[in-house]
Amino acid sequence: MNVDVQAVSLLTPAQLLAHWQGHRRLTRKIIEAFPDDQLFSFSAAGMRTFGNIGWEIQGVSSYILSGLMTDQWPKPEWGKPVQQKSVLLAAWDELSAQMDRELPTVPPARYSEEKALMWGKQTALSAALYALDNEIHHRGQGYVYLRLLGLEPPPFWER
Amino acid sequence: MNVDVQAVSLLTPAQLLAHWQGHRRLTRKIIEAFPDDQLFSFSAAGMRTFGNIGWEIQGVSSYILSGLMTDQWPKPEWGKPVQQKSVLLAAWDELSAQMDRELPTVPPARYSEEKALMWGKQTALSAALYALDNEIHHRGQGYVYLRLLGLEPPPFWER
Repeated sequence: MNVDVQAVSLLTPAQLLAHWQGHRRLTRKIIEAFPDDQLFSFSAAGMRTFGNIGWEIQGVSSYILSGLMTDQWPKPEWGKPVQQKSVLLAAWDELSAQMDRELPTVPPARYSEEKALMWGKQTALSAALYALDNEIHHRGQGYVYLRLLGLEPPPFWER
Repeated sequence: MNVDVQAVSLLTPAQLLAHWQGHRRLTRKIIEAFPDDQLFSFSAAGMRTFGNIGWEIQGVSSYILSGLMTDQWPKPEWGKPVQQKSVLLAAWDELSAQMDRELPTVPPARYSEEKALMWGKQTALSAALYALDNEIHHRGQGYVYLRLLGLEPPPFWER
């Protein structure tokens, strides 16, 4: 493996995994914080429910992990999201475990290569950062939904 | 400078700067998207106005940039946030220009060192990622506010 000394390391694969899993743990808490009967019914200003947002985060994260692992980036077939908290949480936990196993095995050089993603070309690193951005962004919406429901969300800084 | 070959580079200083500035450009657009008379008055569910959230993002980003540059991490003195969009945007642009000048000069080794931040100990890298997390998270709230105001927010993926 070539190490580009110009490309000073700020973030290692282990740090990326830890960072991502910290966000997944927090998003899981937000999903759990919704009452069962509100997760797939409540929304504000015509936006999606947090349950469906959760499935989107799950789908994007799974797509990026799969692309990093296989180096294939076709548009996945996404089924209709099951409108049930327990099913979402089970899929969530399965993907988190898969990420623990698989992300450390991704060849590091792959991250700097440009890939043809379903939404356009970007480097695999940008794709991974985008998956994180997307998760944090939409989870922020979930915090507002919980407040609008009169519920205190879990602290943002506890992962 | 030592390059730790175990610490494979996924993110270079230049990429961190580009990523951060992309987020700053997007947050700036969200601040701008608020009508002048709503930025410091509208909020939902007892949460802060997006103007005050913008000042917080600005304060945290400035604190982290300053810490990275000087390696001093004391709690800054934060004045009362000026309730005026033009003042916030001027401060925003000033910090963005400062970040362009200063972030590339931070010694890369500093990122992996643990620092005593105002909210506890973490590595400087974690602190930088936390500043980004915080910005994306709170900006997600701003998207909901805009929707609640009946406004279409700028696209998340355009930076």
